[in-house]
Amino acid sequence: MVYLAKSEASIFYEASYSNDNSLFLSINGDNFFITDGRYIEESIKNTKNCEVVESRDVVKKAKEILRSKKVKKIFIDPLEWSIDEFDKLDHLIRIEKRKGLLSKKRAVKTLEEIAKIKKAVEIGKSAFDKFAVFIRENGFGMSEKELNWKAKEILSSLGENELSFEPITAIDANSSLPHARVTDTKLKKESVLLFDAGVKVNGFCSDMTRTACFDDNFHFGYEQKFKSKQMQRIYDIVLKAHDDAIFTAKPGMKAKELDKIARDIIERAGYAKEFVHSLGHGVGIEIHEYPTVSAKSETILEEGMVFTVEPGIYLPGIGGVRIEDMVVMKSGGAELL
Amino acid sequence: MVYLAKSEASIFYEASYSNDNSLFLSINGDNFFITDGRYIEESIKNTKNCEVVESRDVVKKAKEILRSKKVKKIFIDPLEWSIDEFDKLDHLIRIEKRKGLLSKKRAVKTLEEIAKIKKAVEIGKSAFDKFAVFIRENGFGMSEKELNWKAKEILSSLGENELSFEPITAIDANSSLPHARVTDTKLKKESVLLFDAGVKVNGFCSDMTRTACFDDNFHFGYEQKFKSKQMQRIYDIVLKAHDDAIFTAKPGMKAKELDKIARDIIERAGYAKEFVHSLGHGVGIEIHEYPTVSAKSETILEEGMVFTVEPGIYLPGIGGVRIEDMVVMKSGGAELL
Repeated sequence: MVYLAKSEASIFYEASYSNDNSLFLSINGDNFFITDGRYIEESIKNTKNCEVVESRDVVKKAKEILRSKKVKKIFIDPLEWSIDEFDKLDHLIRIEKRKGLLSKKRAVKTLEEIAKIKKAVEIGKSAFDKFAVFIRENGFGMSEKELNWKAKEILSSLGENELSFEPITAIDANSSLPHARVTDTKLKKESVLLFDAGVKVNGFCSDMTRTACFDDNFHFGYEQKFKSKQMQRIYDIVLKAHDDAIFTAKPGMKAKELDKIARDIIERAGYAKEFVHSLGHGVGIEIHEYPTVSAKSETILEEGMVFTVEPGIYLPGIGGVRIEDMVVMKSGGAELL
Repeated sequence: MVYLAKSEASIFYEASYSNDNSLFLSINGDNFFITDGRYIEESIKNTKNCEVVESRDVVKKAKEILRSKKVKKIFIDPLEWSIDEFDKLDHLIRIEKRKGLLSKKRAVKTLEEIAKIKKAVEIGKSAFDKFAVFIRENGFGMSEKELNWKAKEILSSLGENELSFEPITAIDANSSLPHARVTDTKLKKESVLLFDAGVKVNGFCSDMTRTACFDDNFHFGYEQKFKSKQMQRIYDIVLKAHDDAIFTAKPGMKAKELDKIARDIIERAGYAKEFVHSLGHGVGIEIHEYPTVSAKSETILEEGMVFTVEPGIYLPGIGGVRIEDMVVMKSGGAELL
């Protein structure tokens, strides 16, 4: 099979390294990593299982190699190519679009990959613990921006680790925005704090969310007591949806069936419209990858898949709750990472 | 004219706000901002000149609006759409691909935009100055990772500002990688330090690079004295290329002519192959936007364009020099920002 990978994640998966201007061309097992002069040194040092080829125009170089090897047909993933870049490919060669060709093969993780993900999750959890101690001791009166910076300092160990994504640190009403941006809102006594963050270690991501009440015993554990009865009620519903989904998940189940377990609990409690996103998503080299765990996803959950379970309820102007953990699917069911 | 904008930068330009799942549809001046439930509150609060429409499937919603308004033809920018997303658009409607349709209209800046960019450049420069003081007083023995974290702390004012991109902090041989990633390499007496960073303020980016020698008088000014004669030689060449390009730039010139002024100086000095990238790129809402200032770019440099001038010479295993500033094109020539 001949395929041409374009996304950084796919190329990292194939070559153990990637950058923002490279292509990975696989011709029946003969692999080429094509990149420009800026990245040559790094590429030679870090890539595996491929020959590094330099070119200012990586698409042109790929076409040259394809011609010299007399290739007649290649596969690409239409999710990875912009229309403009696709139009530059040589249409004298037959190009077959196969959606998810490269990203889907990353959905089921090897034991080695799971071990790497576990490592990222452990580092992420330990950062949540340290951050909780910091908040308990120093958080009063600090703004979302200040807290978020401190979180990044702790998560990254002063820049030692990459972050999976820009963390979400949202206080009180701002927590009702599932993807809130940081503001100057300050942490007060009995404020609600929603914190969603992860680290990327050795190329693999972690992802976790906790919603907590700021008091003298502040922590990121599951047991939380909120001042507002309404917040307590939605917290308890979300926690039940989270727990039941993880407890019920089994290999062979469709992703939409798992989404339904959590969604039904939230719907029966009267918050159908306030659970505005999917139950979860795969995590690995990318923070969002296959499988999608949504109300529409027909994907079969297989052993070795790693994904998040993250139900949420968001009350505009009041506050929101999301509780998120990563699980790996095992033969007996989902195992918390 | 009817057009559908997809990239975050284009949407931000049109609506003064964007997120990672939205579309901006303009039907002869009637504008719609389509996004999903997670972003509704933020979108209503922050968008300008458009109606916010909620949908889980933003492409489907755009098609519904197009049908209800009986639109026959729309324009899109092929750089903004993946093949997969493009295939989801309704092909019953005529779709015209117009490359750079939306991004090119951002190349010439308004006075208001230039003022915003100036603000970002000022904050960026002041952060470079503060970082230089920190390095002079505390830098000895610190690693690239540690220095880079400190740089981010200063640039962002503890998270108050966004960064334009992940800074490049490269010491000695690592500076020969134009896009170096941070390592554990430590700053020694007379080390070469290359630092490339910028901030994003009110949606607009700054971008600047300095290469400096670490000694008791450490600073990010242009006058630098390096221990190695070879490094001093390439520094002087790069600085001359930088200065001559800025001095010579005039509106009406082709971008490739400007690139050639700097490239000729470097080529004549014998380092043609060691200047592995373009002279510069436009900067605005995105850190890289129109115009491209490369050896091939036929773009006419117009008044109001904002771009970088950043020649470099990179000696693998030894070290590299890059000196980068942003300029705005005025009637009389390029003005340093």
